[in-house]
Parts: sequence; structure tokens; C-alpha cells
Amino acid sequence: MSAKDVVLRGLISPVKGLMEEARVVLEQGITDPSPAAQDMLDHISRFRGKQMRGALLLLSGEATGATSDEHPTMAAVVEMIHLATLVHDDVLDGAEVRRRVACVNQRWDNQVAVLLGDFLYTRAFGLSLNLRSTYCSQVLSDTSRKICVGEIEQSTMRYNFDLNQEDYERIAGAKTACLISAACELGARYPEHGFSEERDRYGDDMAAFGWAVGLAFQIVDDCLDLEGDPEKVGKSVGTDAEDGKVTLPILCAYWDADEATRSAIRDVYTKPDLDRRAVRLHDVCDVARGVEFAMARARELVDSASARIKELPASDARDALLQIGDYVLERRW
Amino acid sequence: MSAKDVVLRGLISPVKGLMEEARVVLEQGITDPSPAAQDMLDHISRFRGKQMRGALLLLSGEATGATSDEHPTMAAVVEMIHLATLVHDDVLDGAEVRRRVACVNQRWDNQVAVLLGDFLYTRAFGLSLNLRSTYCSQVLSDTSRKICVGEIEQSTMRYNFDLNQEDYERIAGAKTACLISAACELGARYPEHGFSEERDRYGDDMAAFGWAVGLAFQIVDDCLDLEGDPEKVGKSVGTDAEDGKVTLPILCAYWDADEATRSAIRDVYTKPDLDRRAVRLHDVCDVARGVEFAMARARELVDSASARIKELPASDARDALLQIGDYVLERRW
Repeated sequence: MSAKDVVLRGLISPVKGLMEEARVVLEQGITDPSPAAQDMLDHISRFRGKQMRGALLLLSGEATGATSDEHPTMAAVVEMIHLATLVHDDVLDGAEVRRRVACVNQRWDNQVAVLLGDFLYTRAFGLSLNLRSTYCSQVLSDTSRKICVGEIEQSTMRYNFDLNQEDYERIAGAKTACLISAACELGARYPEHGFSEERDRYGDDMAAFGWAVGLAFQIVDDCLDLEGDPEKVGKSVGTDAEDGKVTLPILCAYWDADEATRSAIRDVYTKPDLDRRAVRLHDVCDVARGVEFAMARARELVDSASARIKELPASDARDALLQIGDYVLERRW
Repeated sequence: MSAKDVVLRGLISPVKGLMEEARVVLEQGITDPSPAAQDMLDHISRFRGKQMRGALLLLSGEATGATSDEHPTMAAVVEMIHLATLVHDDVLDGAEVRRRVACVNQRWDNQVAVLLGDFLYTRAFGLSLNLRSTYCSQVLSDTSRKICVGEIEQSTMRYNFDLNQEDYERIAGAKTACLISAACELGARYPEHGFSEERDRYGDDMAAFGWAVGLAFQIVDDCLDLEGDPEKVGKSVGTDAEDGKVTLPILCAYWDADEATRSAIRDVYTKPDLDRRAVRLHDVCDVARGVEFAMARARELVDSASARIKELPASDARDALLQIGDYVLERRW
């Protein structure tokens, strides 16, 4: 276990028992009587990752005094939806390595990856229907739809250097911040009906916290894709430039550049048969400066997230949430 | 409008008004504020087809006296899930034409087709959550999961000539009959709670009817893929052999053949760089005989489906259901 993992384990310690319950629900959910399906589901279980979305849901419940016996199930459902998006993302990105394990689309093929993602989505919805309130199902079906739309918009914005920061944040937010925000909000607001004004405010606060932290996370992720070491990041890097995704750090470098440099950046993105485009970007422009600007924005977002929950009653869970914001700036989950 | 379309229109006339309501719900459901998403959804609306699954749900409700004000919404949800599977199927099959309109994966690319399918799935679940009972959501999330597993199993069974009829029917059933059966069952059983023994029997009968008709439909579809004229069928044909799918008509021809012919059939499936494999199959074996055997099985299924609902009270809806069974044998929907 790396030093970072030790830090992370400390952060989620206020919900250690609940996380264990969620993990059991998740493992039971990712099973099927079909041996062919089970074989693939076993493979998936190896890149489940740190389950930070589930942890955030549980911490949010603890920090706002909302935790119920159904919170671990919700955490498992959120993780399952996240897994579904990861599996489909890998089809979209043509990625080869996810958390140091071959992606589904490499181990089998794109066909199976599409189906497995569908399996996870439908299983997640099915599981959420076991909850006493349909509030979780409603929030997550709506959130999943927004994630799809964000990805669709991103795919139409490829190779588009006319994006402004607002466009970028709207798309990156729908793609990533949306589910993190929903997890935090669900933790604080479930089961929704019949609660007090105070709980309503907690719900709003946690939704805003999750959105800001989630967007910061995506920005850091985009920076890592440009600069990261695949060994440390644990997944393929440099894929954004290959896929024509114009991310915030590269946009910042672009805005800052003269016309000749801008043209060179566009060429790196669009010239056919080029390899290692992310590396080549470093040759034609000041990537480090773009990353610096983007990271400053990520820090600003984390600061606003922290401000939003500082007024919560003091608790280990609240402190953990505050520290997770800082953790996001340091590495990917 | 073709003669076949006129026949079909006659068949669904007992639920004409309800179908109109379902169509409105479906159209409202397939919208999004994002112009990029809406552009793609508009494209999809052009290959909506005859909406036979929705019609079966409504006919099933009418024939069993179960129709409620929520039946049109359920019909729209079932059609939306069917659309989602079609869009993802086209990615899996590499299809180019669906109902004489370019498939999403051709008009845009596989990435967008994956996302659009996800959008439709999540929208369908979201819509089903508006119903007063969660029974429909539960049935359809479970059904969608089974469809995925059926497709996963099919993908692992490619190029496998050791399949027996039971394997084939299990996989084809999960892929196709499952949703049709669920539609028929929902029509008769919704909203599930507090109903009589009679209604319970109706639910079982309609589920069995839908399964048998759905399986017959898939068998006919597999025959059309081998023999059909793309102009008449309205979608790409010959793709099963290209994709390595061993279907019932070809299995029947294979079982009936001597070892030399069997080897030739396997070669047509597996030799690299071969084109028009479906056409070549006709050169190496007696495809017509395989189709004949498969169609006999389809007729047997339709007969068993009809027997299952003959005891329902006489009504236009019941008669339409009986005729739809026969219609399935004549052409694809």
C-alpha cells in the first residue's frame, strides 16, 4: 500500500464500518448466474478503485446526521453507476489500462464492454429500487442522463479551440462533478420527504460541495493526462490529445500563446498519423503554465467547497470531507 | 404505406387511441435541452419503427381488462428501452442501415451511439419512476439486465457450432423474447399489488405468450438475415455470418450436413478476409432446408402462444394478439 493510500484510508476512517457494508452490497450486486457474465464481472471487480463516491455519500450522511440503514446500499449503487460509466468511457476513449488492469475493451472487445456497462447500469437501478424511498432512483437516473449528455457534448466539442472556460466547466461538470454532487446530496437528503429546513440546507450545501470538488477532480485529472506518469496515475495518460479532447490546461496554454504557437497546438491535435501527441504538445507550447493556471482554478473550487461546509457541526466526518478536498488537488482517486 | 403496414395498422386498431398517447409520452421523453443531444435524438426518432412492443403491452392490458391511465406511459418506457438496445446493438453488430436510416454509429460514431443508448436507458428508468407503482421499474430493470446477459452469452458463443437448440433458444430468448414477454406481462399485471387469482393467471398467460411470440420473432429475424432482401427487410442483412453468430437456421443446416459440408460451413464463418459470407453459405450447404426447419419451430412457438390466450374473454384485443402471432411468421416488425 502506497503512502497516499494510507492517507486516503485515514480520510475515510469515520465511515469504515459503513464502507464495509457498502462493499458487501456491491459485491453481491455484481454477480450473475451466467458463467460468461460472471467471468467478466470478476474481471471488473479488480478495478473497483477507492470507491470515493460511495465514501463521500457516507461521509456526507455522517457529517449532516442523516445516516440511515439504507445509506450503504446507496453508496453501492453510486459506485455501480460510476463503474458503468468507467466501462463505457474505456470504449469511448480506446483506453488500454485502467488501474493497472487491462480494460474490458482490451481483454475482450468493445462489444462486451458496451454490454457490461449496460449490465452495471441496469443492476444499479434495480438495486436502488429496493430502497424504501424512490428518491435515490430518481436522483441517479437523472444524474446518469446528465452524464451521458455531458459526454455527448464533449464528443461534439472535440478539436474545438473556441471553447471558453464556462463551456469547459459545464461539460466537465456534467461528466464528472454531477455524480459526485449527487452522491453528497443523497447522503445528506435521503429519503427526502418530511425533513426540516435545516436538512434542506444541508442538502444544498453538500450538493454544492460535491459539484466543486468533483469539478476540481476533473481538472486535476485533465492535468495528469497531460503531465502524468502512467505508472503513478495507474491508467493510460495522453489519451485526451489523441481523442481530440481540448481540456482546461491546454486551453489555458492556448489562450496564453501567440498565433504561431496556437496554430502549432492545433496541428498537434489534428495532423493525421501523429503519435504521442501529449508529449509533442510540450515541444510546441508552455504546457506547464497551462497546468499551473488550471490547478489554480482547481484550488479555487476546493476552497469554495470547503467554505460551503465549514459551518456544519464539528465532526470527524466533516473534517474528513474538508481534507478530501485538499487530497483531490494532490492526486487522482 | 405498404400492404403489410395496412395489415399491421389493422392489428393494433383496438389500442389506436392508447398508442397515440404512448407516442406523445415517447416523443416528450426523447428530448433534451442540449442542442448536441437533441440533434442526435431527432435522428433516432426516425427509426422508431412500428412500436410493436408498446402495442403488445396495450393489447395485453385491453385483452385482460387491466388497462389503466398509466399503461401508455409503460408502453413508451418499453419502447424507449427497446430503442436503447437497438442503438447499442448497432454498435455491436457494426450495422449500417436500420429501418432505411443510417444507424447512429454510421452517422456519428460508436462513441456517440454508446452514449445515446445510455441516455435512452436512463431516460426510460427515469420515466418509469413517475408511475404510481414501482412494479414496472422493477420488471424492466430486471429485464434489461437479462437482455445484457443474453447478448454477453451470445458474444461468447460466436463461431461455436456445438450449440444445441436449447442453448440457442435460451440466448435468443434472453436477447429478444424477454422484453416482449415483459411488455405483455406488464400490460396484464400492472400495478401488481392486491389483485385476484384470475389476474395472476392472466399475467402468467401473457408472459408465456410474449416469450413464445418473441422467440418466434427472433427465429424469423435470423432466417431473414440469411435469406432476406435488404430492401424489404429495411435493415442490413447477412451480418450474423459476418459477426460469427451461429443462428438456428444455420445450425439446422449444419446438423443435417455431412462432415465435409460442416467443415465448409465453418470455413465460411472463420476464413479471414472473406466477404458476403451469408451468400457463400448458400453455395456450400442447403440453407433453404435449415430455414424451413427453423420456421417450423417458429410456427410451433406461435401455436403454443395462441393456445395460451385462447381462453381469454372474447375481445378485439385478444383477436389482434392472436393475429400478431401469425403476422410474426410472415415478416419482421
